[in-house]
Amino acid sequence: MRLFPKEIDFFEIFDKTSLNITKAASRLVDLMEIFDDTEARAKEIHEIEQDSDMLTHDIMKKLNKTFITPIDREDLYSLASRMDDVIDLIWAVADRIAVFKLKEPMREAIKMSKDILTTAEVMHKAVKKLKEKNYAHVQEYCIEINRLENTVDRGFRDALGKLFDDVKDPILIIKWKEIYEHLEDASDRCEDVANILEAIVLKYA
Amino acid sequence: MRLFPKEIDFFEIFDKTSLNITKAASRLVDLMEIFDDTEARAKEIHEIEQDSDMLTHDIMKKLNKTFITPIDREDLYSLASRMDDVIDLIWAVADRIAVFKLKEPMREAIKMSKDILTTAEVMHKAVKKLKEKNYAHVQEYCIEINRLENTVDRGFRDALGKLFDDVKDPILIIKWKEIYEHLEDASDRCEDVANILEAIVLKYA
Amino acid sequence: MRLFPKEIDFFEIFDKTSLNITKAASRLVDLMEIFDDTEARAKEIHEIEQDSDMLTHDIMKKLNKTFITPIDREDLYSLASRMDDVIDLIWAVADRIAVFKLKEPMREAIKMSKDILTTAEVMHKAVKKLKEKNYAHVQEYCIEINRLENTVDRGFRDALGKLFDDVKDPILIIKWKEIYEHLEDASDRCEDVANILEAIVLKYA
Repeated sequence: MRLFPKEIDFFEIFDKTSLNITKAASRLVDLMEIFDDTEARAKEIHEIEQDSDMLTHDIMKKLNKTFITPIDREDLYSLASRMDDVIDLIWAVADRIAVFKLKEPMREAIKMSKDILTTAEVMHKAVKKLKEKNYAHVQEYCIEINRLENTVDRGFRDALGKLFDDVKDPILIIKWKEIYEHLEDASDRCEDVANILEAIVLKYA
Repeated sequence: MRLFPKEIDFFEIFDKTSLNITKAASRLVDLMEIFDDTEARAKEIHEIEQDSDMLTHDIMKKLNKTFITPIDREDLYSLASRMDDVIDLIWAVADRIAVFKLKEPMREAIKMSKDILTTAEVMHKAVKKLKEKNYAHVQEYCIEINRLENTVDRGFRDALGKLFDDVKDPILIIKWKEIYEHLEDASDRCEDVANILEAIVLKYA
Repeated sequence: MRLFPKEIDFFEIFDKTSLNITKAASRLVDLMEIFDDTEARAKEIHEIEQDSDMLTHDIMKKLNKTFITPIDREDLYSLASRMDDVIDLIWAVADRIAVFKLKEPMREAIKMSKDILTTAEVMHKAVKKLKEKNYAHVQEYCIEINRLENTVDRGFRDALGKLFDDVKDPILIIKWKEIYEHLEDASDRCEDVANILEAIVLKYA
């Protein structure tokens, strides 16, 4: 049984995109832990994001020009959009740290970033397994992504509580609140990716 | 004339979900009015949200495994997603009140919560009428939901204006602004539900 | 070769909606530059938004009642929704200026508003060319919208950086940050419109 027979190269591109997400998340963890030269580090992540943008554009063009059923197209389109969102948000986090001229990391932001890196790695594995038509493993990885999203969600609410408990400078609160929200959004979009992967497997496997 | 003949049990699940939304909204009004033990009250709403999560997961699985036309699937999928958003946002409001350790309610937040409860009750009726194939009533209730969304929208902008007029502590402004935004979002997602219900009726009735 | 033969009047409505977006954006530039009587000016933009709401409602009803393929419907539905978002956001910007009782403009907000007006004008041209089946020009305009979105995005990050560099009052930061975010969102939704227009052209031209 073949899945999307004519569009197997789509999964090549998704593989590259999810590898890019892993790279960007890994650079974000470095930035969060080392917290020096934040502008240069944000620029590096921006380059990965730009690279992914071209992959997304490529996949959208192929999707629009390839004959596939509406329902396949819709799934692949959503998959590409949500992956694009994840990398955009990872870049937004790095960018805000530079734009806000933040000088010191927050333990909670490091933890959230690490959990997002783990999520990205599992997502990359899930995409690879889908490409290899190893559907049982796709589902396992998707469950793990959902579990990780719960972890990030709890981490986000802890971070928010601690931010308002410990920090008294409202401007610093505004800055970190936005960063935490982008991290939480990135994790939510990873969960969306997992849900789409699960839907694809349920429909076609 | 039958609507979604093979998937009539979908509407059973939507009925349960919209009942859950009503329950959660009712608990939120209690929390807003009484404003004691906010953490325990938020936890109760969280349990309703968790319960709904399982219903949503169940419906998504059934949608992916059932043979239905892409367009029906798309509508039912959107319906489940938007209802899930509503209950998530109601929980988020309750959760923020606890996380932000707010000690006193805001009159405007009570009013917005009550309007959302009314919206939820009308939404529940609309779903019931759809299940019973009483399409004229579905449309009536949808118009009422749209009207209520306008009320919440005006309430939101009043609340925002009053917040910046009356409160001088920027941290308190940040906290309540987020709560008002989540309430407004919950109301917007209810309007999305009404629009999807209307679309279903227009297409199939 | 005909595009959406039976629904050619859809593009009449899109033409009117995109003209409305241009009008609203133009009024927003006036508000930002002159910055007097902000409440009355916001009300004028609200009237344009209300007018567009009726157009959107009309198109949604026609979409649901017209027999078209799911994939066409999906594209037209998205187009109408994203255009509706653009005008909602332009109105939200004007409304916040009034609700927040802001007394002085920000140079960066004027610049972002002007770029959004330019985007709206190009978008209107793109919709006109689609109506005329002049597909090559549609694509050209879409590329220009994407370029403008990059400009607004850079403008947004500059504005954010300058806001935190120059303004010391946290409440003023909260207010302008929200306005900048709505402007950036409006630009993002214009990019969505461009992407949908491009997809339509690629699929059917």
